[in-house]
Amino acid sequence: MTTRNATVAVIGAGDFIGSAIAKRFAAEGFTVFVGRRGGEKLAPLVSEIEAAGGKAFGRSLDARNEEEVAAFLKAADDHAPLELCVFNIGANVNFPLLETTERVFRKVWEMACYSGFLATREAARLMVPRGRGAIFLTGATASLRGGVGFAAFASAKFGLRAVSQAAARELGPKNIHVAHLIIDSGVDTAWVRERIREHEGEEALANLDPDRLMRPEAVAETYWALYQQPRDAWTSEMEIRPFGEKW
Amino acid sequence: MTTRNATVAVIGAGDFIGSAIAKRFAAEGFTVFVGRRGGEKLAPLVSEIEAAGGKAFGRSLDARNEEEVAAFLKAADDHAPLELCVFNIGANVNFPLLETTERVFRKVWEMACYSGFLATREAARLMVPRGRGAIFLTGATASLRGGVGFAAFASAKFGLRAVSQAAARELGPKNIHVAHLIIDSGVDTAWVRERIREHEGEEALANLDPDRLMRPEAVAETYWALYQQPRDAWTSEMEIRPFGEKW
Amino acid sequence: MTTRNATVAVIGAGDFIGSAIAKRFAAEGFTVFVGRRGGEKLAPLVSEIEAAGGKAFGRSLDARNEEEVAAFLKAADDHAPLELCVFNIGANVNFPLLETTERVFRKVWEMACYSGFLATREAARLMVPRGRGAIFLTGATASLRGGVGFAAFASAKFGLRAVSQAAARELGPKNIHVAHLIIDSGVDTAWVRERIREHEGEEALANLDPDRLMRPEAVAETYWALYQQPRDAWTSEMEIRPFGEKW
Amino acid sequence: MTTRNATVAVIGAGDFIGSAIAKRFAAEGFTVFVGRRGGEKLAPLVSEIEAAGGKAFGRSLDARNEEEVAAFLKAADDHAPLELCVFNIGANVNFPLLETTERVFRKVWEMACYSGFLATREAARLMVPRGRGAIFLTGATASLRGGVGFAAFASAKFGLRAVSQAAARELGPKNIHVAHLIIDSGVDTAWVRERIREHEGEEALANLDPDRLMRPEAVAETYWALYQQPRDAWTSEMEIRPFGEKW
Repeated sequence: MTTRNATVAVIGAGDFIGSAIAKRFAAEGFTVFVGRRGGEKLAPLVSEIEAAGGKAFGRSLDARNEEEVAAFLKAADDHAPLELCVFNIGANVNFPLLETTERVFRKVWEMACYSGFLATREAARLMVPRGRGAIFLTGATASLRGGVGFAAFASAKFGLRAVSQAAARELGPKNIHVAHLIIDSGVDTAWVRERIREHEGEEALANLDPDRLMRPEAVAETYWALYQQPRDAWTSEMEIRPFGEKW
Repeated sequence: MTTRNATVAVIGAGDFIGSAIAKRFAAEGFTVFVGRRGGEKLAPLVSEIEAAGGKAFGRSLDARNEEEVAAFLKAADDHAPLELCVFNIGANVNFPLLETTERVFRKVWEMACYSGFLATREAARLMVPRGRGAIFLTGATASLRGGVGFAAFASAKFGLRAVSQAAARELGPKNIHVAHLIIDSGVDTAWVRERIREHEGEEALANLDPDRLMRPEAVAETYWALYQQPRDAWTSEMEIRPFGEKW
Repeated sequence: MTTRNATVAVIGAGDFIGSAIAKRFAAEGFTVFVGRRGGEKLAPLVSEIEAAGGKAFGRSLDARNEEEVAAFLKAADDHAPLELCVFNIGANVNFPLLETTERVFRKVWEMACYSGFLATREAARLMVPRGRGAIFLTGATASLRGGVGFAAFASAKFGLRAVSQAAARELGPKNIHVAHLIIDSGVDTAWVRERIREHEGEEALANLDPDRLMRPEAVAETYWALYQQPRDAWTSEMEIRPFGEKW
Repeated sequence: MTTRNATVAVIGAGDFIGSAIAKRFAAEGFTVFVGRRGGEKLAPLVSEIEAAGGKAFGRSLDARNEEEVAAFLKAADDHAPLELCVFNIGANVNFPLLETTERVFRKVWEMACYSGFLATREAARLMVPRGRGAIFLTGATASLRGGVGFAAFASAKFGLRAVSQAAARELGPKNIHVAHLIIDSGVDTAWVRERIREHEGEEALANLDPDRLMRPEAVAETYWALYQQPRDAWTSEMEIRPFGEKW
């Protein structure tokens, strides 16, 4: 592994996807800065990256706080030029419209949309002056469809998608690649497996087809492929799903 | 004009479109409740409706305030069953991403998206128990496209569109018609005419083709047509634009 | 009913929708020209329109034949200026991709797409010189989504949609309203009822919720509403579905 | 370069994109079968691939002919299992609707849509029994938008997109990756450069920004990236464009 003089920041590195992305780019020689609420929970991820010969720093971060986001990205950029910022915070909730409280609607938006705007803008502020960089945002099925029970979540994800489009159009000509990756399926995480056990039973879980769920590593691989696109063939949005998925 | 024992509430009746909608439904015999910040400014609209033989009530309303929205719709519903709620608040701003402040991003969302969620939910709470009603939301070009300079506005309008989709899917089977009307063009208002004078000169304004801009009455007519759809042929989203518009 | 000096041509008047459209516009005073293969089957429709005080002419027409289409529309236009041309030919087939023959793929395209192109172009040739008219095309769920088993049908319907978009953009500024109406549901026809009897039984058919299927009259009403749009607020595409439909 | 016991078929290898795709996969050790009308023109491409240590066969092929397509793919599959079929035939024409002849409309469809259906079905027939393979189809801006002058071309490209969607949904669960790559920009070819010289002059051409046009190699790279996707994270459609492109 060749060490690169460049950093990758992952905002929302608390879950399996964020961790997989951090590991993927660390394995390519980038120093990764990973941020989440309760940053101490990042210690195992940082250790794992370091054990594999990579470099990583974990930070506590409330992504809804403008100053914290700016400081987090600045710290990465001070370490080495910020090459990529990944925004990966989800807030998947499901409530009937009539039971969606003001508090839930606002909080989901703050986590899944407003934070993404802050991350995009702050990363762009560091990248525009040097005319290079990439900003990748994680989307979901709800980024494209407001389904039953998803007024709050879809509203936030639609909003994040709009940010990604405006940013891609504004920053592309400045050589900054903005892309929105829509994950149109369940990802293989402890939480999803627990739901399967709950709804389908122990046996269903034990016999789970390995390709029915998406591995976090496959999502990370997609981000790596996006990062490697030459600048005369950039993608601004793409969907991924397992081969057996109905859609 | 036959008076109907039913009310129509228009949230965001401050502009030409909201006024035209109020007048259109008042002319069909509905009692209209119109709300906006600085409700005293609604006096001329109320007078005009009354002079034409209709019934209208103007109310001061901060549509971002849950309790005010609930009280406004409740007042209408107490007067006569709330048949239609129109959400028509815009917040069209244009800033480069890097100059979009936290405050602007949040405020635009509160006005154009969050308020729309509140209006939809509160109207639904009144309509669901009696199993009838309609909720119409005004969209814009930015509901479908995050263009350069529109990170804040498009994000809010995308978010409102998601609310309309989730609401349409949840409330349709309960006989409540939710529709999102995308106005893909400039509407003929004093503000727009002033911009044309400013950018193209007095003569251009004087010679303005009457069909280059959309009349507020045409928007109101579209809402009336949506309202008249039989329930076995409901539209949940449609775009309108003048015949000469490039798109 | 006031008689108008204008004609409406309906291509594909063989089914319930085409008939309903013909009756709707005849009831507004237009002379309607209805065309289908086996034009003698149109006699009951023509009689029904005439019994209601309207005027109608039925014609045999192979809509895939350029000269026949031109002659059919010319005959209408010779009678009185052609005000509206409705293209309403479906060709809904479902085959797995591997069992879709060359012949099926081509025939479905000729019926559902190529014929629509011919109708649009020939109607436009009559309308452009006088600077007014409307061309409405009937779409389906498959106009937007290539589902399992729909390679042939969706390919043709996608293609028709592209024709409608190009035509709307080219002809709109010439004061010709082109619109594409997507019927996202089953329509209440003898054929559909037979399928329900077959799959769900006699009792299910007897107890059918009247709003589960879309009445042809509701589709016709939508076309009438589109026709009445003022030209500063034209819609180029809209979907309709019954209130209880899942989507 | 490790030789693989697998073939890649490129239908429509007459242009720069098809050639670049053939070279890209040949460089990965696949034996490539390239087909086009006037197959003798493929000699330089085959020579170039062989000079680089790869294996290639050029074949004359009318892609609108069911039997020729089947025979072409069968020949590849007889040589070594067909791993990937790329359909890359364009037919970009621009005519006003009123000047679009029946012949043009039909021919463009046969080349850009019907041929793609044949290629997809015939490739699937070879791939389904062994439960693996990939089918990639080249799209364009006109796959998503029916613009002025594009009734014929967009109609065919929309139709091809529907085929790709139905095929992806039917074949995905059978472990066959179907993807539609939308090239939303000009590609750097002799033909495009000639148009620039014609419209903008010799100097503009000489000073052409190397990233204003998309290199065929960049398109080929995207196909390679799609091919490398793990099957739990497949993309069925993506767009690419140069970083400076307006969209």
